[in-house]
Amino acid sequence: MRASERELDQLRSITIDTEFTKHPEGSVLITVGDTKVICNASIENRVPPFMRNQGKGWITAEYSMLPRATESRNIRESSKGKVSGRTMEIQRLIGRALRSVVNLDHLGERTIWVDCDVIQADGGTRTASITGAFVAVTLAVGKLVKDGEIDTFPITDFLNAISVGIMPDGTAALDLEYVEDAEANVDMNVVMTGSGEFVEIQGTGEEATFTPAQLQEMLSLATKGLQDILECQKEAIGEFNQYFESSEA
Amino acid sequence: MRASERELDQLRSITIDTEFTKHPEGSVLITVGDTKVICNASIENRVPPFMRNQGKGWITAEYSMLPRATESRNIRESSKGKVSGRTMEIQRLIGRALRSVVNLDHLGERTIWVDCDVIQADGGTRTASITGAFVAVTLAVGKLVKDGEIDTFPITDFLNAISVGIMPDGTAALDLEYVEDAEANVDMNVVMTGSGEFVEIQGTGEEATFTPAQLQEMLSLATKGLQDILECQKEAIGEFNQYFESSEA
Amino acid sequence: MRASERELDQLRSITIDTEFTKHPEGSVLITVGDTKVICNASIENRVPPFMRNQGKGWITAEYSMLPRATESRNIRESSKGKVSGRTMEIQRLIGRALRSVVNLDHLGERTIWVDCDVIQADGGTRTASITGAFVAVTLAVGKLVKDGEIDTFPITDFLNAISVGIMPDGTAALDLEYVEDAEANVDMNVVMTGSGEFVEIQGTGEEATFTPAQLQEMLSLATKGLQDILECQKEAIGEFNQYFESSEA
Amino acid sequence: MRASERELDQLRSITIDTEFTKHPEGSVLITVGDTKVICNASIENRVPPFMRNQGKGWITAEYSMLPRATESRNIRESSKGKVSGRTMEIQRLIGRALRSVVNLDHLGERTIWVDCDVIQADGGTRTASITGAFVAVTLAVGKLVKDGEIDTFPITDFLNAISVGIMPDGTAALDLEYVEDAEANVDMNVVMTGSGEFVEIQGTGEEATFTPAQLQEMLSLATKGLQDILECQKEAIGEFNQYFESSEA
Amino acid sequence: MRASERELDQLRSITIDTEFTKHPEGSVLITVGDTKVICNASIENRVPPFMRNQGKGWITAEYSMLPRATESRNIRESSKGKVSGRTMEIQRLIGRALRSVVNLDHLGERTIWVDCDVIQADGGTRTASITGAFVAVTLAVGKLVKDGEIDTFPITDFLNAISVGIMPDGTAALDLEYVEDAEANVDMNVVMTGSGEFVEIQGTGEEATFTPAQLQEMLSLATKGLQDILECQKEAIGEFNQYFESSEA
Amino acid sequence: MRASERELDQLRSITIDTEFTKHPEGSVLITVGDTKVICNASIENRVPPFMRNQGKGWITAEYSMLPRATESRNIRESSKGKVSGRTMEIQRLIGRALRSVVNLDHLGERTIWVDCDVIQADGGTRTASITGAFVAVTLAVGKLVKDGEIDTFPITDFLNAISVGIMPDGTAALDLEYVEDAEANVDMNVVMTGSGEFVEIQGTGEEATFTPAQLQEMLSLATKGLQDILECQKEAIGEFNQYFESSEA
Repeated sequence: MRASERELDQLRSITIDTEFTKHPEGSVLITVGDTKVICNASIENRVPPFMRNQGKGWITAEYSMLPRATESRNIRESSKGKVSGRTMEIQRLIGRALRSVVNLDHLGERTIWVDCDVIQADGGTRTASITGAFVAVTLAVGKLVKDGEIDTFPITDFLNAISVGIMPDGTAALDLEYVEDAEANVDMNVVMTGSGEFVEIQGTGEEATFTPAQLQEMLSLATKGLQDILECQKEAIGEFNQYFESSEA
Repeated sequence: MRASERELDQLRSITIDTEFTKHPEGSVLITVGDTKVICNASIENRVPPFMRNQGKGWITAEYSMLPRATESRNIRESSKGKVSGRTMEIQRLIGRALRSVVNLDHLGERTIWVDCDVIQADGGTRTASITGAFVAVTLAVGKLVKDGEIDTFPITDFLNAISVGIMPDGTAALDLEYVEDAEANVDMNVVMTGSGEFVEIQGTGEEATFTPAQLQEMLSLATKGLQDILECQKEAIGEFNQYFESSEA
Repeated sequence: MRASERELDQLRSITIDTEFTKHPEGSVLITVGDTKVICNASIENRVPPFMRNQGKGWITAEYSMLPRATESRNIRESSKGKVSGRTMEIQRLIGRALRSVVNLDHLGERTIWVDCDVIQADGGTRTASITGAFVAVTLAVGKLVKDGEIDTFPITDFLNAISVGIMPDGTAALDLEYVEDAEANVDMNVVMTGSGEFVEIQGTGEEATFTPAQLQEMLSLATKGLQDILECQKEAIGEFNQYFESSEA
Repeated sequence: MRASERELDQLRSITIDTEFTKHPEGSVLITVGDTKVICNASIENRVPPFMRNQGKGWITAEYSMLPRATESRNIRESSKGKVSGRTMEIQRLIGRALRSVVNLDHLGERTIWVDCDVIQADGGTRTASITGAFVAVTLAVGKLVKDGEIDTFPITDFLNAISVGIMPDGTAALDLEYVEDAEANVDMNVVMTGSGEFVEIQGTGEEATFTPAQLQEMLSLATKGLQDILECQKEAIGEFNQYFESSEA
Repeated sequence: MRASERELDQLRSITIDTEFTKHPEGSVLITVGDTKVICNASIENRVPPFMRNQGKGWITAEYSMLPRATESRNIRESSKGKVSGRTMEIQRLIGRALRSVVNLDHLGERTIWVDCDVIQADGGTRTASITGAFVAVTLAVGKLVKDGEIDTFPITDFLNAISVGIMPDGTAALDLEYVEDAEANVDMNVVMTGSGEFVEIQGTGEEATFTPAQLQEMLSLATKGLQDILECQKEAIGEFNQYFESSEA
Repeated sequence: MRASERELDQLRSITIDTEFTKHPEGSVLITVGDTKVICNASIENRVPPFMRNQGKGWITAEYSMLPRATESRNIRESSKGKVSGRTMEIQRLIGRALRSVVNLDHLGERTIWVDCDVIQADGGTRTASITGAFVAVTLAVGKLVKDGEIDTFPITDFLNAISVGIMPDGTAALDLEYVEDAEANVDMNVVMTGSGEFVEIQGTGEEATFTPAQLQEMLSLATKGLQDILECQKEAIGEFNQYFESSEA
């Protein structure tokens, strides 16, 4: 039995609150167990220099933790004057994942800035960020379509993410919380689309390795868990589900 | 009549939620109108190098805004690689104000890190930060006393802050929200103790000046407003009010 | 009696040498007791990007100390690779104060760079910088008017500054030198116009507080002291006094 | 048929030159097609502060490209004053992978610095770096054992890496060179041990996704390719193969 | 007799390999004894902002060492986030020296980026860099002329460099290797043209001084040594020697 | 005839004011024509980490210009967040030159910080800095000896510096002022001891070269000019001349 009395294939409870703050075009608070991330999507009516005059848009993400989101306080990256390797890796992952389900040609020369700010961390912050950021972006982009600012809904599929791991006894477990993550032999993040294709797989054994059979087990758990998360996302985006349905037609 | 139909001497509604996140020793969400700041106090059992071996403590503050706390998105300071002058000024102010009501000798060799993170900004973020940070510090320090880790409650008085300003028509107004602040001739931040003494006065006319009479009018408004804020703080700190009462005895 | 045998309401001796170095449009060495600051005003015929195409000017200030301006040597900020919070606070104050008495519309698309470099420090460097910088800017701008490069003298009033404080025995004192500043309970900087209005008030009690009565006492001392400083400034700007007289007419 | 007339499951030619420069404890030039990386392992007789007094060692990696390793010149990261997200991601991957096959307890309080410097890039630089770095570390550590400085050979298994991808026509291909990588839908890096377990899997579809079947196909190709690379590594480490054999006994 | 059994006026063996890597317009590996430097020249079809619209070109150089080019490992400058004073001094020297023999007017609005990356260091890396960089630039520029992209061969003379020094016994020696350099009283770098004029002389006694007679002795050794190096350079540039001959005619 | 109606071998007027500011152990304002540099020497009773526990001292120099020391304003290096290559080169030169005439063994574990701050620049700032810094260091060290804090006067000889150049017409000239320096073909800085030996020679032709005969001519001019500068230095150090005389005995 796991730390929080969950089954090996059981997700923590998830809620996605929308309109969490008033300024962003899309603003979401995603809660996965004790992990809480504010995901804001901001629309800017121009693109970075390397994208100009191509008639298409860009999506970029930033990720940060409040200093005391964690058990002991971390030094603020703005005070250190540089962003850590871990942070860069995560924000590159979030941006890349979102771009895989958005047709940038239909976005026009706009940048979507996605800010994922972890206010409380208990494992799985990067996957919660992706799941929440997708909703924030959908809300922001949905309004653009609804307001007639863009013609074609540019999001091609749902997107979400979850972590899986191999515990010290060799079994695979879904959605690791912090105490589990700290002792796991292998940690894998899986990003998938609503139609069940992979967008990104990152599996890592820091001081351990994993067999092909363990890989398959982790992939099965992740695939199953992401179907439940998909339902939460659909509920959160409300009226904008219609755009996905029509685009599937 | 003001933007939000308030009287000139009327505060916006204030709420102070405690235990907002689970890790910090003191964690508060302060809401002043549409301004929302997470104030976390963390206790670290050592002091910075310049304070070592003196048997006393230290308090330091950091202040930050989420990129989209404001109407248009700001560049993250960690991405810019440096902290702006405005941010430095605010975090120096918060730390200095808190130190004025804490007897560092009674704290032992501990550092209190205060993190004020603005998640939604609508004017008065620095004064809301001071008011909220005082509560977070009191909760963190109160627990130390309650748990017997320190003998003497080191906080000597309540501390809070509010903004006042001179509007374009020359009248003074209390607790400016963003649209008022943007058009005000003079902006003044007043930090006071519970017993009505000044800790800090910062009055600034960027493209205007103010007369001695206007200064007095602003100070009166601030003094009155801070008495109401004091009541909110007393409610938020609950059982720890006893320590203030006994120290006053 | 004070450290330097001054009365509580007595200024240190002040001299303002003009044309101190040959390149700047306005160059001043201001000496206040043992505090010496080089204040240079440079005119640049363009404005920063955020001000372009508005037909108006900009004033910005930088402040620095020689490493050995102080009793023990400080690390050079260029070697540290960043500007301290204290320096930023001071240079923001100087720039803001100067802008309050200059009508930027009459300056044309020009930037005035004000450099305040402390070569010897003995308390009151930021207020001496403001007093000296005002003279340097007046000399630089006066030449522009005299040379016919701008039509309307854009400076609307005199500007100067002084520090006051509350000593450990509770009395207020004017123009603190370093040894006094180090032991004062409260330190207040007051920036005023020639016509006696406030531009900026910054009063701070680091480990002490001050009463409303003490505040009034400090403001009275400052107001009186600044009248004497005004006379020094008038002497220093020589022929350009005429522009102020005509603008007052 | 592929750009370089290879089969889909065919590696580019690989050579591993040892003792490439004279100072490092282990120095290797690995050539994979037109990709050339200098991999140097340096032994330092101390560990970073966070590892001190634990009696164990540490391995860390840095990765860099000569500015003109690529078709067009890149700005040197030392000139930019910061390391890019891509570089950080790669050097974290290399360090993590190496640590998974080294028993740090047997290394003593030593740090192994691994420097992977790409002098010519044609795709697959991060996987070539891992493959070459493993040889450099083995040579450096092997000498320590041979010289009697450490008792137990601390490397537990071989380690190598290769890229695989999904080409625009949906087929999987092994060991992508630059022109292939640029047009591939999916890019996956696979790091494995000599005994066929996974150490790290990173599969990414920037503007595309991949099916579970395509994932399996890529994993098969990688597994096969890495067996050939293992032979090159065995040849390169020469006499030190004995340590692996005895540790397997 | 010297460390490596050379005469006082004897150079170490020199080889200049051309086309060392495939991407740069000019790519050279220069080997001087155990010192090995990759010198790459890249042509970019634009000039830096301060040179624009003048119809002429620019040459700039960067210099770096692999961390383990030296006996003990150095921290990578990109990790430190800044370039050391020594590196800046060397790259300014290389750029300045190259510009002295190139007529920038004949280059058109192009920048030549010269990258000197030391992969193995044993003294004389800056002079080897100049000697090798000259060949790399000649190859890059020669191709531009050959391909008809520029009309006039812009290089006006050969350029090379060597170090000389005063040994502890007061004798002058040519081409110091590392162990000699470390104990020399005086270290001098001499940069000359093919026609025997000086481009740069930098003679330094860190804890010693040198007499006018010793200066002459060092200059004689350098002048003699550079004639031999000139022959190596002529051999390396092959067909492009013709451009020098015709420009001399 | 030269810009300022000097002969080719004629120095500008030089004055060396001592006790220029009150805090430093040695404080000098050196004026060479219109070039003015504040040279301060500070004694710190410890050495940098790499020098500890060797019983000897260290001397290091920093050089800076006020932003408006020059005809047009330069960006402050502390604002840019990094020190330019030119500044680094100059401060390395000053430190190295001073160390060549100080026996660090006799200094004890002390650091001498030398700060050269140019307040007005008109050519020759680096050589004026060396000449002035030598006086400041002598005053600071002389006091240490006089006060009995060190036993042996550690300065072994006088030190000074001057620039020479080759003008466009091919003639050599001494002590170039800015307008001459800007048009000179060759610029050479010569640092010598009081007894006429060279400490440093740096001759540079940016877009020109120089012959061996021109080199000799420049060296002759420099040697002659430095004899006059030596007299100014002797006058400035006053009573401390005795220490040089006794050390010569």
